[in-house]
Amino acid sequence: MNEIRCDPLSGHRVLIAEGRTERPRDYQTNHVIESESICPFCAGNESKTPEEVLRTGGTNDTNAWEVRIVRNKYPALSPPAPVDPHLDLESAGTTSLLPEDETSTVAGEGLHEVIIESPEHHVRTADLGVAQLAVVLGTTKRRLEQIQTIPNIKSAHVFKNVGPAGGATIEHSHSQLIALPFIPHSLSRELEAMARHQQKTQHCLLCDLQENEIRGGQRLIAENANFTAFCAYAGRQPGETWIVPKNHLAHFSTIALSECESLAEILHQALAQLDIALKMPAYNYMIQSAPLEGTLIGHYHWRLVILPRVTTQAGFEWGSGCFINPIAPERAAEAIRRRVPVEEIEHSQTKNTNSCVSH
Amino acid sequence: MNEIRCDPLSGHRVLIAEGRTERPRDYQTNHVIESESICPFCAGNESKTPEEVLRTGGTNDTNAWEVRIVRNKYPALSPPAPVDPHLDLESAGTTSLLPEDETSTVAGEGLHEVIIESPEHHVRTADLGVAQLAVVLGTTKRRLEQIQTIPNIKSAHVFKNVGPAGGATIEHSHSQLIALPFIPHSLSRELEAMARHQQKTQHCLLCDLQENEIRGGQRLIAENANFTAFCAYAGRQPGETWIVPKNHLAHFSTIALSECESLAEILHQALAQLDIALKMPAYNYMIQSAPLEGTLIGHYHWRLVILPRVTTQAGFEWGSGCFINPIAPERAAEAIRRRVPVEEIEHSQTKNTNSCVSH
Repeated sequence: MNEIRCDPLSGHRVLIAEGRTERPRDYQTNHVIESESICPFCAGNESKTPEEVLRTGGTNDTNAWEVRIVRNKYPALSPPAPVDPHLDLESAGTTSLLPEDETSTVAGEGLHEVIIESPEHHVRTADLGVAQLAVVLGTTKRRLEQIQTIPNIKSAHVFKNVGPAGGATIEHSHSQLIALPFIPHSLSRELEAMARHQQKTQHCLLCDLQENEIRGGQRLIAENANFTAFCAYAGRQPGETWIVPKNHLAHFSTIALSECESLAEILHQALAQLDIALKMPAYNYMIQSAPLEGTLIGHYHWRLVILPRVTTQAGFEWGSGCFINPIAPERAAEAIRRRVPVEEIEHSQTKNTNSCVSH
Repeated sequence: MNEIRCDPLSGHRVLIAEGRTERPRDYQTNHVIESESICPFCAGNESKTPEEVLRTGGTNDTNAWEVRIVRNKYPALSPPAPVDPHLDLESAGTTSLLPEDETSTVAGEGLHEVIIESPEHHVRTADLGVAQLAVVLGTTKRRLEQIQTIPNIKSAHVFKNVGPAGGATIEHSHSQLIALPFIPHSLSRELEAMARHQQKTQHCLLCDLQENEIRGGQRLIAENANFTAFCAYAGRQPGETWIVPKNHLAHFSTIALSECESLAEILHQALAQLDIALKMPAYNYMIQSAPLEGTLIGHYHWRLVILPRVTTQAGFEWGSGCFINPIAPERAAEAIRRRVPVEEIEHSQTKNTNSCVSH
């Protein structure tokens, strides 16, 4: 059975999931995408995936679908079972408890699902096209609405891994959904930061940030009626990009279907331009959305974070929790906006300086 | 000039260090160790490194040294300059501040140094041998004692990157030291957890944890007069190992020279056995030591954390701050103790169960 453990010093949580060693490529230093002759995610191979939980387009048991959501074959969590309502899962495994104290370990129950984003074998997200991406986002929204009704699920995390360095083991375009029986610390900290800012200024922190980025413009990548995309001020990797809804909403799942199209448009643009600026990088994207319950939720403002994976996290990052970013976010944003490799921005600036000196 | 930025939502800090793009291998998805014909870290090539700040053995300008500490050629921080004593760097860049508010960015000043661990071209730490490892640790201790006297340095991080997946770009055995003008959040959280436990129980959290691991034994790897080594209860990667001093000390730098030998012995054993259990993995190790100033320091208990790098952090980990570990720490510890590949532990357990069933 899977298990969730909390580190007594840092408070980080770990899902112990031994079944995942069965994944052919999960346990090697040098990841290589499996080139299976039969891709389990392509139309016609529906029987190769575990149970389907939701689909858009077509009827069940046909291959005329647009997007399918299936259970993960190697789940990080066991399916949820009814639990003791008196057990406080949220504070379970908080810091300052010794291991194996009764509250520091909880059963690793939750959901781990795969969103198959196309019946065709596309690899890069940008190749899906805007219309298909809107269907993916709409299907994800519908699944999150369903998950909200499942007891004991406290937060749901939608993410995408592209490329071996991004943690992908299958190349067919897909994203994933993990629903947890607790609220991760990093989400709690964001909630607290937003609540603090609200209390101090009567404004939403992310609304203010977004306005600041539009006004400043140096990190802005794109803007449409409903969203802005900008490089994060303290980006952890070159080209880390946030897509922020103009509408202050805590949960991605409350997005209107028309907004899904608008989000698909700006996400497609950001990813296609990032592919040029960073030369087809591995990347992750994550939908950062509020927990499903709690008093501070109203202060939260959801966003989509794109994280290119071009530098390797080393001992310093793991030890300190700090990051080293070798490309200033303003420079990355300029490259993404101008649709040129980031090196060209540096080169032209260096050339300008040099020519000033030599004249 | 380098810059330190703080994310307004999560509070994480990023060192913006554009000079590091010059590193030949830092900006690619697939890291390959440079096989330069001339290794800049080998004896005889001292002129290939930046300024030397400390050495053990030999006199300056000869190649009869045992360990050298030099400045990093591509530093993540600029050398420290005198700063305004009225500027509160510790609270600078805390959450709930908009970017470019005057306190959310601080100059990226600090130290980034390389500890060249041997005049000979060893690649795996375990190949250095116990005596040489003791000299490395003793030299590191001496350098940390010097750094404590530099104004505006708030915390010092010693870490080692081994293998491309561990973030290494040069294969000659070396570790690094980054000294920061602030206390990272993750260290603050550990300090708070230790202070909370102290208040509740009048005991040190890590002393209690260590006792618990010795008593339980299922995660224990090794023990000598001064140290224990055990797999971390909530290990973030397969085989994450903590080496904990029995002596309650906040700072690694206060270690006695005789304890350096004892630490070298248990570190060497843990790494050599980890090399067998996980088949020569990439790894990092980090010396987690108290900040250089602050009221909670007395509660801290330093430790050395070995983090094998066998799984890739993907969108879930980056988005939630949680981890997925496919090998239970108890199983990893058994493999490390028994000096066998971890798959053999799984195999024999499965076989036992099967034979029970079949009889």
